[in-house]
Amino acid sequence: MTAPTRDIVQYYVVNSELGMSPGKIAAQVAHAATTMTLHCLLNDKSSHATFQAWLNAGQKKIVLRGTEAELLRLSESGYLSIRDAGHTEIPSGSLTVVVLPPADKEEIRSVVGGFKLM
Amino acid sequence: MTAPTRDIVQYYVVNSELGMSPGKIAAQVAHAATTMTLHCLLNDKSSHATFQAWLNAGQKKIVLRGTEAELLRLSESGYLSIRDAGHTEIPSGSLTVVVLPPADKEEIRSVVGGFKLM
Repeated sequence: MTAPTRDIVQYYVVNSELGMSPGKIAAQVAHAATTMTLHCLLNDKSSHATFQAWLNAGQKKIVLRGTEAELLRLSESGYLSIRDAGHTEIPSGSLTVVVLPPADKEEIRSVVGGFKLM
Repeated sequence: MTAPTRDIVQYYVVNSELGMSPGKIAAQVAHAATTMTLHCLLNDKSSHATFQAWLNAGQKKIVLRGTEAELLRLSESGYLSIRDAGHTEIPSGSLTVVVLPPADKEEIRSVVGGFKLM
């Protein structure tokens, strides 16, 4: 009997109210990816096993969209959020993306279940 | 007299011929961000100073677009490239993004000068 395969996913929620271009969205999501990778490697030792299992399985990422208020709520719950420096397109300090750490899909269904795909 | 400020940038070149959605593009660029971060931290010790300076200055990212042939040329030159697992939207193995390591803008102008913003 083999162990059940874990379905580990990293979710991003993009602020759909800012009217960002596809390139801008990609850059903001990539900021979140870089920052979360550094966090998982350097700060959050407790998550190493899940992070490594997620990498080994192809680092599955799903990009969702939400309102400013929804992102703010996630951010205030302690999820890592990205605020833009405001060099292009949008005002400085805009909340652009919230990113969740890689986690078992079933465990975070309650957090991201209400969001639509980007 | 102060030292001149370095303008360190990380460029991404997205394959514009695949017709990917904004969410798919963001996920692919984020794969590149995660993979490059791991590479800079764990493998390429020679780039640590530049990587750290780039992080400290706000991890500036610029997303460009290119043709399949242009991405292939960059990939064959040794730049890190992302091929999609093909779960959604596009065929498995599609070359989606090429990412350059964070570098001084002037130094990589010759590599990315011909590409347009995404």
